[in-house]
Amino acid sequence: MLTSTVDIRARYSETDQMGRVYYSNYLVYFEVGRTHLIRQYWKSYSDLEKDGYFLPVLETHCRYHNPVGYDDLIRIESRLTFTRPTILHFDYVLTNPEKSFLIAEGYTEHCFMTRDGKPRRAPAELHRLVREGR
Amino acid sequence: MLTSTVDIRARYSETDQMGRVYYSNYLVYFEVGRTHLIRQYWKSYSDLEKDGYFLPVLETHCRYHNPVGYDDLIRIESRLTFTRPTILHFDYVLTNPEKSFLIAEGYTEHCFMTRDGKPRRAPAELHRLVREGR
Amino acid sequence: MLTSTVDIRARYSETDQMGRVYYSNYLVYFEVGRTHLIRQYWKSYSDLEKDGYFLPVLETHCRYHNPVGYDDLIRIESRLTFTRPTILHFDYVLTNPEKSFLIAEGYTEHCFMTRDGKPRRAPAELHRLVREGR
Amino acid sequence: MLTSTVDIRARYSETDQMGRVYYSNYLVYFEVGRTHLIRQYWKSYSDLEKDGYFLPVLETHCRYHNPVGYDDLIRIESRLTFTRPTILHFDYVLTNPEKSFLIAEGYTEHCFMTRDGKPRRAPAELHRLVREGR
Repeated sequence: MLTSTVDIRARYSETDQMGRVYYSNYLVYFEVGRTHLIRQYWKSYSDLEKDGYFLPVLETHCRYHNPVGYDDLIRIESRLTFTRPTILHFDYVLTNPEKSFLIAEGYTEHCFMTRDGKPRRAPAELHRLVREGR
Repeated sequence: MLTSTVDIRARYSETDQMGRVYYSNYLVYFEVGRTHLIRQYWKSYSDLEKDGYFLPVLETHCRYHNPVGYDDLIRIESRLTFTRPTILHFDYVLTNPEKSFLIAEGYTEHCFMTRDGKPRRAPAELHRLVREGR
Repeated sequence: MLTSTVDIRARYSETDQMGRVYYSNYLVYFEVGRTHLIRQYWKSYSDLEKDGYFLPVLETHCRYHNPVGYDDLIRIESRLTFTRPTILHFDYVLTNPEKSFLIAEGYTEHCFMTRDGKPRRAPAELHRLVREGR
Repeated sequence: MLTSTVDIRARYSETDQMGRVYYSNYLVYFEVGRTHLIRQYWKSYSDLEKDGYFLPVLETHCRYHNPVGYDDLIRIESRLTFTRPTILHFDYVLTNPEKSFLIAEGYTEHCFMTRDGKPRRAPAELHRLVREGR
């Protein structure tokens, strides 16, 4: 298991006319979280693609607890595990660190594939990192 | 239960560097589907907000079956039910009608609230429409 | 010169907390307009990329006249000319066809390049189409 | 004149299938730049709206010099002047600070209005800040 934390602020472009962050943007925040986690423990996801590894999403889920508005601070906590040797599972918890309440929680699942869209074994190094938790 | 179908094409802006539609945009397609369903049976969601009804999202789930690329045709089939008297549940199935394969399926759950964010009873007329299926 | 017209509706995801369409989304509407124009006279932009032609943007300009809100109908009129043999120039006019007022107007300029980012001569057929206006 | 600098990284969601940041997202980066500038010298734009000041965009222009890809660092330099007592003019320069090349440059123009969309005089304090340059 690997965990990581990163803070961002909601952009004006991410709000909608209800005055809140539009619901699909939480999935973009999830991406910011997992990008940060992978870079912190291993390498940039960008380099991963240069090595021929792609990580399409298989499934995503999000539960929305409290709305978040423009310029609000959002703390993204991400956690990586393997549910199967080939399936990466990321859990996310979004909180407001200034007012300490839960914004949302969710998960995404991914597999590894080649540039051509063929399934690919996860790198052994990532398995080791997740197992050792660092 | 109410059902509705609408076709759209993936925009270039919606793709990512993997050459596919970025995963959060499926939630935007869901929105296009439910907006279409509500307008078809009842009224525009825009008028609903003028009447003081807002529909924040409580939960969302999506399973990604086959990727979709720029300019691909996407058929969005939406289905509305009430899981509780206050909770709207939309199911979505996205298919490629030209090549007839499944792209994705998912759901969103919503409650009614006032402009100020207070819970609000769902309009009786919508309950009737969903019960009668037309 | 080639001209083309297409109508779309503003999505909820495209609004911001001012209750209007967020300003960068007008550039997405421009993309919808030029994609439509190219498909109408010639081929899908998607096929163009399969032929190894890419059209990065060099410059864009937009003047915002009247705001547009969720679910409003937007008419996108696009016009294609060549300002130089290698530079495509698209002009766009966005209007509300229901209430007949001007929403915005702007332009984008593009060049042709290869997949590797090298400059490439515009296809002779496109020059002929623009010259003949059909 | 007020100037401000902020660094961000391009998100995966912001790329397109050409493998570059999609052109409308530069306008989102501009927003990040001006939000940062206003907060640095004065107050959060969020508070500005609470005070009843809204800043719709009148015009925008962008020249794209060199592409930027996923996870690339982007330095946003913003500069605020008044072109007329009622018109705020922001200039932006986007560079890659790691490889020191120009990504793009552009501007946006805004006016002040009330929540109801009526023109409103710019706050005297902002005029003073811009005049004094701090």
